[in-house]
Amino acid sequence: MKVAILAIGNEVLCGKTINTNSAFIAKEVEQLGGKIVHQQVVPDVLEEIVEGLNVAYSYADIVLTIGGLGPTVDDLSRDGVAMYFNETLVYDEEIYQGIVEYFKRTNRAIPSNNARQAYKFKTGLVLTNNNGTAPGLFLEKDNKSVFLLPGPPAELQAMFYESVTPYFLTEIKERKISNSYRLCGIGESYAEEMILYLYDKYPHLNIAPYCAVDHVDYIVSTTESYETELREFDEEFKNLMTDYYIGDQNTDLPTEVVRLLKEKQLTIATAESCSGGLLSSEIVNVAGVSSVFLEGIVTYSYESKMNRLHIDRDRLMEHGAVSEEIAYDMANNLKELTGADVTIGVTGIAGPDGGSELKPVGLVYVGLNVCGKNIIKSYIFNGNREKIRQRTVAESLYLLHYHLKAL
Amino acid sequence: MKVAILAIGNEVLCGKTINTNSAFIAKEVEQLGGKIVHQQVVPDVLEEIVEGLNVAYSYADIVLTIGGLGPTVDDLSRDGVAMYFNETLVYDEEIYQGIVEYFKRTNRAIPSNNARQAYKFKTGLVLTNNNGTAPGLFLEKDNKSVFLLPGPPAELQAMFYESVTPYFLTEIKERKISNSYRLCGIGESYAEEMILYLYDKYPHLNIAPYCAVDHVDYIVSTTESYETELREFDEEFKNLMTDYYIGDQNTDLPTEVVRLLKEKQLTIATAESCSGGLLSSEIVNVAGVSSVFLEGIVTYSYESKMNRLHIDRDRLMEHGAVSEEIAYDMANNLKELTGADVTIGVTGIAGPDGGSELKPVGLVYVGLNVCGKNIIKSYIFNGNREKIRQRTVAESLYLLHYHLKAL
Repeated sequence: MKVAILAIGNEVLCGKTINTNSAFIAKEVEQLGGKIVHQQVVPDVLEEIVEGLNVAYSYADIVLTIGGLGPTVDDLSRDGVAMYFNETLVYDEEIYQGIVEYFKRTNRAIPSNNARQAYKFKTGLVLTNNNGTAPGLFLEKDNKSVFLLPGPPAELQAMFYESVTPYFLTEIKERKISNSYRLCGIGESYAEEMILYLYDKYPHLNIAPYCAVDHVDYIVSTTESYETELREFDEEFKNLMTDYYIGDQNTDLPTEVVRLLKEKQLTIATAESCSGGLLSSEIVNVAGVSSVFLEGIVTYSYESKMNRLHIDRDRLMEHGAVSEEIAYDMANNLKELTGADVTIGVTGIAGPDGGSELKPVGLVYVGLNVCGKNIIKSYIFNGNREKIRQRTVAESLYLLHYHLKAL
Repeated sequence: MKVAILAIGNEVLCGKTINTNSAFIAKEVEQLGGKIVHQQVVPDVLEEIVEGLNVAYSYADIVLTIGGLGPTVDDLSRDGVAMYFNETLVYDEEIYQGIVEYFKRTNRAIPSNNARQAYKFKTGLVLTNNNGTAPGLFLEKDNKSVFLLPGPPAELQAMFYESVTPYFLTEIKERKISNSYRLCGIGESYAEEMILYLYDKYPHLNIAPYCAVDHVDYIVSTTESYETELREFDEEFKNLMTDYYIGDQNTDLPTEVVRLLKEKQLTIATAESCSGGLLSSEIVNVAGVSSVFLEGIVTYSYESKMNRLHIDRDRLMEHGAVSEEIAYDMANNLKELTGADVTIGVTGIAGPDGGSELKPVGLVYVGLNVCGKNIIKSYIFNGNREKIRQRTVAESLYLLHYHLKAL
């Protein structure tokens, strides 16, 4: 099943927006067993959209368009597809009422230009958008199919899972099977070294790593006839990676940490310096966290470390704010203060200034108190301030997960 | 000067690698005054590369190819371009010695397959690669030009600045000029409604909005001959958007807030509930923030609001944690506690549970105390938990910026 992607929009074309949407769609479609054969980006110009569709259908039977569904005059995807297929666009009161509802929920008047989004093809389907105003559209004509998806990634991804995935699951005949594995606390190079021999050992599996700042995913796929091979791989891989494997690619580390806390009926509190609240924010982002998360304290200044966490002034002066000792105190004093079962203290040098030969930029200490047991770890992270802070939070969550699982 | 980009490679096509190279090239070319008219991704297949060039030259006179210059059998960009232009590839001893040198510098033996990279077009130029083994190539024939650039971003970027930039600087006659504007605290639809008349009033300007979760950017460009028109637009636009305009497209709202705090020699502290530390984290992400940011408190539970922020139990019970009154108390009690000049309290319902008819999911109160003056704002945000929390922080930062600027 050949699939082409047609991204529509000046912001992607001129490089202002990085085309992450095409990568997302390509990855998903390939996992579903479809084959991406061509990708394009064209501007917000009616004739260019039509020509882009011409090119795309010379490669594929299914085209997924991205963007150009917004309310402004340069949102022309509907019109371009209608022109290519010689279809009529009709105003749909139900869509419009949906948009009105969306604005009502946010107590805002509906801008008049939003009526543009209420048009659909005379035939074909409307794809619900639960995260924005622009609905998606689907059309099948002359043995060609087209999905029109919105540009904002959150809207596109939700709509893809809701409306595009089921389509591919139905249409694709030889079923592809796959497993995914999310690894945390390990870098791509090390993971690759550890599993290198598996590439030869399991020749019928397609083993592909995907690296992100806080995890490495492995997607391993094959066709139904090699189900046994995939099952054997699964067992071996999980054994090999037992310290790092946290679940499939949809597993979210903060969600897992919260799940383990709930399962073990434990509460948590956080004390952060260099991460500045990013750790607590990741935990609070998990729905239903209120039964386990008590509070967070961002003690950025020396004074706040002393006033809020009762860290001893002499110890601060002796060891410095970025030290094993202070990470230890942050976790333990926080436990005394809040009564939480699990406490974590994070202190480090995120840079770009503040580093020294002994304590370079990127040095981070994480102190844990898990039901009375202390764990201290030190790290040196590479990268700019933002990346060091992200890596700090990723490793802190991994450390929490590791020690909660072991309980 | 019309330019098309042709990325070559299965990794990009199937979504394993995000196509940041195309975005980099597009942005650079546009800034140099070139016009990106089309982008494609095709697989590592000879015929597909030739067909990709066919499509690209139907749009443009200059094509930049990305990738496919490596030493392995599926690196076919040279061969594809040679076939398209009916050119001969010739072995070049000088290129080969360069590759040998590169391996010597890194103390490694040269793998035999690297000889593939020593081929160049019989006519045309070789582009030096100081960051890798694969040289780039340039060919001009039948009024068409092509640059072959390597796939690894560091190699591509260095080669672009060294060899492609000078080419465009020579070739492009009319210089392009542009302004950019970052707006916060206003949605795309409303911004568009406000400026709709400017599209007609300034017919020689290209006005393009770019929407993100926490801002709307406008990029306005034209050629040198319309400099006066651009200047007039600039004045009118800034006047019109005075409440929302925070700077050009590179302006970062947290950085601006920290800059204003430093300029006015004020300190800040944050108290957060639903945003869970995301606000403090955004502020702490600004380098050199330690002179203004004192501390943050994430009072997620009722107990922490009472214990840490001394919020009155009766008031909490009477008004609920998500209320104007508690946002007010959070800001004011935090001021008392920390002595910060500026304090902010954020409380809301991020969902998915916890909403009611009176207090729906998405309801957020932000309380500010700016040097003794209290400001309270309420919002209703749409979206999932993550989006509501992001919007909460974006609007909080906008509110801080607005009132700091007014001081």
